[in-house]
Amino acid sequence: MRHDVNYTMLADFYELTMGNGYYQCGLQDRICYFDVFFRNVPDHGGFAIAAGLQQAVEYIQNLRFDEEDITFLRNKNIFSEDFLEYLRGFHFTGDIWAVPEGTPIFPREPILTVRAPAIQAQFIETYLLLALNHQSLIATKANRIVRAAEGRMISEFGSRRAQGADGAILGARASYIAGAGGTACAMADAMYATPATGTMAHSWVQMFPDEYTAFKKYCEIYPHSATLLVDTYNVLKSGVPNAIKVFHEMGITKGGIRIDSGDLTYLSRKARKMLDEAGLPDIKIIASNSLDEYIIRDLLTQGAQIDGFGVGERLITSKSEPVFGGVYKLAAIEDGYGKVIPKIKISENAAKVTIPHFKKVYRLFENATGKAMADYITVYDEQPDFTKPITLFDPEATWKRKEFSDYTARELLVPIFRKGRLVYQIPSIEETRAYCLKEVDHLWDEVKRFENPHNYYVDLSAKLWDIRAELLDARNH
Amino acid sequence: MRHDVNYTMLADFYELTMGNGYYQCGLQDRICYFDVFFRNVPDHGGFAIAAGLQQAVEYIQNLRFDEEDITFLRNKNIFSEDFLEYLRGFHFTGDIWAVPEGTPIFPREPILTVRAPAIQAQFIETYLLLALNHQSLIATKANRIVRAAEGRMISEFGSRRAQGADGAILGARASYIAGAGGTACAMADAMYATPATGTMAHSWVQMFPDEYTAFKKYCEIYPHSATLLVDTYNVLKSGVPNAIKVFHEMGITKGGIRIDSGDLTYLSRKARKMLDEAGLPDIKIIASNSLDEYIIRDLLTQGAQIDGFGVGERLITSKSEPVFGGVYKLAAIEDGYGKVIPKIKISENAAKVTIPHFKKVYRLFENATGKAMADYITVYDEQPDFTKPITLFDPEATWKRKEFSDYTARELLVPIFRKGRLVYQIPSIEETRAYCLKEVDHLWDEVKRFENPHNYYVDLSAKLWDIRAELLDARNH
Repeated sequence: MRHDVNYTMLADFYELTMGNGYYQCGLQDRICYFDVFFRNVPDHGGFAIAAGLQQAVEYIQNLRFDEEDITFLRNKNIFSEDFLEYLRGFHFTGDIWAVPEGTPIFPREPILTVRAPAIQAQFIETYLLLALNHQSLIATKANRIVRAAEGRMISEFGSRRAQGADGAILGARASYIAGAGGTACAMADAMYATPATGTMAHSWVQMFPDEYTAFKKYCEIYPHSATLLVDTYNVLKSGVPNAIKVFHEMGITKGGIRIDSGDLTYLSRKARKMLDEAGLPDIKIIASNSLDEYIIRDLLTQGAQIDGFGVGERLITSKSEPVFGGVYKLAAIEDGYGKVIPKIKISENAAKVTIPHFKKVYRLFENATGKAMADYITVYDEQPDFTKPITLFDPEATWKRKEFSDYTARELLVPIFRKGRLVYQIPSIEETRAYCLKEVDHLWDEVKRFENPHNYYVDLSAKLWDIRAELLDARNH
Repeated sequence: MRHDVNYTMLADFYELTMGNGYYQCGLQDRICYFDVFFRNVPDHGGFAIAAGLQQAVEYIQNLRFDEEDITFLRNKNIFSEDFLEYLRGFHFTGDIWAVPEGTPIFPREPILTVRAPAIQAQFIETYLLLALNHQSLIATKANRIVRAAEGRMISEFGSRRAQGADGAILGARASYIAGAGGTACAMADAMYATPATGTMAHSWVQMFPDEYTAFKKYCEIYPHSATLLVDTYNVLKSGVPNAIKVFHEMGITKGGIRIDSGDLTYLSRKARKMLDEAGLPDIKIIASNSLDEYIIRDLLTQGAQIDGFGVGERLITSKSEPVFGGVYKLAAIEDGYGKVIPKIKISENAAKVTIPHFKKVYRLFENATGKAMADYITVYDEQPDFTKPITLFDPEATWKRKEFSDYTARELLVPIFRKGRLVYQIPSIEETRAYCLKEVDHLWDEVKRFENPHNYYVDLSAKLWDIRAELLDARNH
């Protein structure tokens, strides 16, 4: 059942044409630094959740060109034989730093940095972005939905509408990391221990002569985990009464009903009343049907009596914004003597100008509250003194300044690979999920608003700011 | 490199709880008919493109539960040992009919029908929907983008923003089927022969002391396939002049430039003029940067001089509508004597009421024009006489009627599996792509409008209409 796929060839073709080009130009050993970062939080939110690092790590470890890959490339008639020979021994020998999965992340800051010889650093771009973009997208969306549910269980239900098998399986994984309580996807559970649950579809009910019989048969087989789907015919006239009848007959007091259509607020309130009056206060009401964070918030505001939500297509595709725009940009190269030379990518659009150089990122937590105040980016060889008060300013509006003291700094990017060797222990999914929820708790509510959140500061050190300004200035002459 | 993954466990957990339930109730051999159909065309379009059948077929052929799957399920402590034993020998023994990949499809009509014993028919729901929903979504979007480009080449560029590896690889496949000319994804080419191309990223340009050197080096290595990325610094002041200089020095007359930012209409017109004045009329201009069918149409309307488009995230995720809502609904069951008993799923929402029964679907082509006039759905054992004139009516507005004569009917659903055996030869991807483009040509322009298309008729035979009305009526008593 497991799949251990070699995704080496899952690269944009230009990574290969450039690789061959670097090889022909003798640039293959030139050390390059690339950053992964993103520019906008999906859904106008205040932060995103990083995810996908485990798959990126597995990809790096599995990197190898098989003979059939080499043959495929040779048949393109544009690659030199010496480059194809080089690819035969291709593997990753560089360094990677990244934020752990589950970390809240903000625009413009590096969430992963690669230091490697040019061909390697360039080649891994496509898959690294794919892995981080996909799961960060879903984790970010899932966390919004989890927060909207205010402690009620969210189950990920979207496999059938996912964009491919990995969309389903890894989407379930990312959802769980970000706080969903489970998934409908059996394979995600088997591969990643994201607890899978499920009971019945409408077709179960239709397979029996009547709804009562369908419920009765189901409860006879699953007396301890019956969640009866009550909307095949009529929720209040048929579904709930039949469920109550069967629960009574079977002596079931801990189970559930699921409503998958109609006015969920109205139906759940009526159903709750019927269940309570029947002496079944511990029967849970689960709702599903095109839910997302906005609808869940509305339902709860309107007094819906719902204990858990099944969320499908709008979670597994992040329907309202299905793209996480992580990019992979050259930040520096080393000259022949190991000196790091910062590189900048300019743009007509000021927001698209990159932050150059090999960098470190610190998150600053206020000691009094434990809340994250700002992220602080320095050049790699700076030794910031975090025992002193620090002045932070909005990089896009530098007249806005705040001075902070009594804070603790934590470095966000941790070593993942050193000289090609994995030096990071991937945490268990339960550890990652707990870490994610704790880190989100360390954000101010103002940053967690669904719309118009507070603009969390991602600040540059004075040294980095000056280097960036110099590079921009040099480009304009 | 190839991956041959067993996706048996990629099922919603309820397929397994229901399967165990059917087994316990002795219903495992009850023959069921399920239809896959969809209700709404994405982006308010007039039709969708079916895709994903090849992956559905491979899934069916690979169906098997490994020992580790059985162990995983046993550890859930809800499945009976006899059911787990049954799963050890589980494989598909039923029949499947489906529309070929590349077929234009319309709401409410079956695009795939399964006839199989209950557990099998139920179990394959999740993956069948996933495969068809994902690729039909991307094929539908790709075809819109291809039509917007009016004959200019569309290249799929979106791997890095895809929702998982399959999102990238099979998204490239679906795009190609629907008319894209190629992809950036090397693995899609290696696996599915969707031609992959690519040249350089901005990082190539940044790796050299200056843009001229970067272009020169590239053209020395790839004199026959150089598409130079001209927007790293300044398109008109630097990129295009440097490209022209290098093309002249190298004697390159057939190549390209790519513009990836800025005002594509303005820049392409200026660049075209500069190239033409430099005696380089055959140097193509490629544009990319957050394109979709609307932007491409606008660019062309405004006179942009663009010969090809690279389309990324908005294609590979179908960003404007990232969900294809195919569903899998019980249409009939057989009694113990082989009699087919139609089943209907009713709903508060009239549009969600299913079309019951085991059915056939015909597409009716007007002989004079070759254009598709309507689709016509019958009960499986009807023998419609298509030599006679036919009266078609809008199922949602039955007073709208048209009589047609001089037409040809073609059955849309073709046999894929018979008694578990594959009886369908999957066409080559080139055949499927040619078929798709030809079939789209057989649609009236009114159906192909991006907005407010003509509502193509999907009609029921009188017999099917009556059966449906009876079932609805019976449910209301």
